[in-house]
Amino acid sequence: MNDAGRNMSDHAVQPQVTPAEYAQRRGRLIEAVGDDTPILLFRPLSIHYFLGFQFAATERPLGIIVDGTDLVAIVPRLEQEFIADSSISRVRRVVSYDDYPGTRHPMEVVRDVLSEHGVGSGKAVATDSDGYPGPSGYRGPKLSDLIPDATVSNCLDVIEAMRRRKSPAEVAILRRSATYSDLAHAKLQQLCTDGANETDVALQAQHLAVSEIIAEASHGYLAGHPWLTALVTLRSQIGPNGAYPHATNRNLRMRRGDVVVTAAMVYVEGYTVELERTMVLGQPTTEQRRFFSLMLGAQETGLDALRPGRRCSDVDRAVRDYFDRHDISRYWRHHTGHGLGLEVHESPFLDVGDDTIIEEGMVFSIEPGIYVPGLGGFRHSDTALVGVERSEFLGSYPRDLAALTCPVDDDQLARAVVA
Amino acid sequence: MNDAGRNMSDHAVQPQVTPAEYAQRRGRLIEAVGDDTPILLFRPLSIHYFLGFQFAATERPLGIIVDGTDLVAIVPRLEQEFIADSSISRVRRVVSYDDYPGTRHPMEVVRDVLSEHGVGSGKAVATDSDGYPGPSGYRGPKLSDLIPDATVSNCLDVIEAMRRRKSPAEVAILRRSATYSDLAHAKLQQLCTDGANETDVALQAQHLAVSEIIAEASHGYLAGHPWLTALVTLRSQIGPNGAYPHATNRNLRMRRGDVVVTAAMVYVEGYTVELERTMVLGQPTTEQRRFFSLMLGAQETGLDALRPGRRCSDVDRAVRDYFDRHDISRYWRHHTGHGLGLEVHESPFLDVGDDTIIEEGMVFSIEPGIYVPGLGGFRHSDTALVGVERSEFLGSYPRDLAALTCPVDDDQLARAVVA
Repeated sequence: MNDAGRNMSDHAVQPQVTPAEYAQRRGRLIEAVGDDTPILLFRPLSIHYFLGFQFAATERPLGIIVDGTDLVAIVPRLEQEFIADSSISRVRRVVSYDDYPGTRHPMEVVRDVLSEHGVGSGKAVATDSDGYPGPSGYRGPKLSDLIPDATVSNCLDVIEAMRRRKSPAEVAILRRSATYSDLAHAKLQQLCTDGANETDVALQAQHLAVSEIIAEASHGYLAGHPWLTALVTLRSQIGPNGAYPHATNRNLRMRRGDVVVTAAMVYVEGYTVELERTMVLGQPTTEQRRFFSLMLGAQETGLDALRPGRRCSDVDRAVRDYFDRHDISRYWRHHTGHGLGLEVHESPFLDVGDDTIIEEGMVFSIEPGIYVPGLGGFRHSDTALVGVERSEFLGSYPRDLAALTCPVDDDQLARAVVA
Repeated sequence: MNDAGRNMSDHAVQPQVTPAEYAQRRGRLIEAVGDDTPILLFRPLSIHYFLGFQFAATERPLGIIVDGTDLVAIVPRLEQEFIADSSISRVRRVVSYDDYPGTRHPMEVVRDVLSEHGVGSGKAVATDSDGYPGPSGYRGPKLSDLIPDATVSNCLDVIEAMRRRKSPAEVAILRRSATYSDLAHAKLQQLCTDGANETDVALQAQHLAVSEIIAEASHGYLAGHPWLTALVTLRSQIGPNGAYPHATNRNLRMRRGDVVVTAAMVYVEGYTVELERTMVLGQPTTEQRRFFSLMLGAQETGLDALRPGRRCSDVDRAVRDYFDRHDISRYWRHHTGHGLGLEVHESPFLDVGDDTIIEEGMVFSIEPGIYVPGLGGFRHSDTALVGVERSEFLGSYPRDLAALTCPVDDDQLARAVVA
């Protein structure tokens, strides 16, 4: 086996985004939309990004008004004390309504508070969503219909552009997530053997890894996700079923000879890297070796092409050229990768149709896949940080076939245990 | 301890929604929007509800056209074989585009296919979302802007109204979820003791329960959720922190004397019940007994009020009257409950502002909570099915304080293990 993720000394202090950095982010957003325009944040990820407040979003509208350095929260009653006590950025005032739908629609409270900030009587408002984008059966008016006298501008593009380049603190957080994800994957790999049920081993690996992280990091570890700590899964990419790039879990058993595709991600402060590996149970066949090696070459092509100053589309074109050159385009199913950070998928995309300029500090998954009907899927996903000249993978989980061959007979198992 | 969830004999066959029922659902939707109007489904839950196809939604638009009995899917290349092979309802044609964003926006493919169905040249279109509601950095036009010559009507309200009353198959699925959730909670309760870390015990209970379910049900068990099997958590509602109704996980350790609030939910075919319990570590104090008993009374008041023909608001008013009558309204933080099924929160809501008539076959959480600053939270959540005259709780996890008192000293532990 390997030592991935075993080196976790000095992890008692978890990297964090400081209150000063949150304030700086708000400052940049205010600069972009204009000093005189209050901003209303409705999206949970925006609220996390600009205030460090992380909560369980429901059908109950929750909004933050950023008016210069003034922060006002409009929340359902059940979040009133929670936001006051737990937001990293100090909120001056918390206005709460009883519940949704309530006898008075919560958006009317939003209108009242905005009006105190001049919106509707001269001032415009910027927002990341024209109305609360609530899940779970929420219904409500658009902001532009609610306050017809105010100009409502959308600043979601500005926010997403800001989120693309990661700060040193965010990079440190992602590196920590990579270390922890390596550990979770090591646990998973140790459990993958002939006859293992995918769900059983994934949930066991998840428990073992998180338990070890908590024991070593103590109060230093915080997932920062409203309801997940880690996500370890094989999503039934096992044997021939691996030819579906986004198969979903069916509790399959893996068998000697199967090629499998895994995923192990551990959240840190709300961020996670993406770590996926192709493994083979038992000695790989010639065909499996060939596709594995082609997949590795495609991933290296992607990493090599990911350089500041180029375009996202250049990276994907380089990988698609590689597929053509090796005559494997009939096994192509998706683009090279995507941005990530607070979301597992974020813009920009390493796709022939995305001409965004790559910049230092951006972070992408690099995960070109080869999907062979009847045989299975071949895909590693690693998280690459764009540097000054080139890019580097975060995390150090082995990528070579020797390290990713799982022993399946008793002798091999015994040797692995002794080692 | 208790026997909750231990009786899992004959669980080899999992209840399912049949292809005929999916067809029937589509028939009812067509009837509601008009025979001559093709329907475009963009929301993953709608696609699950009307076709039995469950997938991992991303920034890549995926839509289904329901035109009479004809089903056409527009999907990213990576889902092409998956939907053809795994949708329970037979899709006549799968149109795929390379990837998002691509050199041509996927919504242009959507327009082309709709136009083959007459949309834009005389026919209107009904949809559950005016444009793909994608997460993860998706950007694209509204359907109404894309096809300005067609009338675009929104049928999301119709769909949500349909989803409210559960069919016998859905009730059977929810009962199965209740049995499994009881089992997961029993595992959790066994692990809750002085010094236990909440994340450790929740992930361990989740693994143990799912592992047992799979072993007993074999291929009969299918979570049917794109990336979750179960969700077991205490979300840091431990001791005084339990006074935040929606606290989020901070890896707290529970201690003798703490009151804790749990959650254990196991997905079955994409559905889950909601099961939450208030437990006390060690012998409860007089104050804990008092609030526990008041909470139980509030929950019973809610269940008793949940009868067909009444309004959702009546149930919440009965519970709020109970709070007033017992002089505990200062500890009130949220309404009585919410619909659930394919989503953990669905409309309608047991809220003073929701006048929806309660009907047989509807399913609600009943979970009035009492939140005492400095002491903690008191909330059971059970899932109630509305019957012909009254309602019943699905699942049979104990609700009384004796059964929910966790032993904390060695003697008690020893007795519990022997029993």
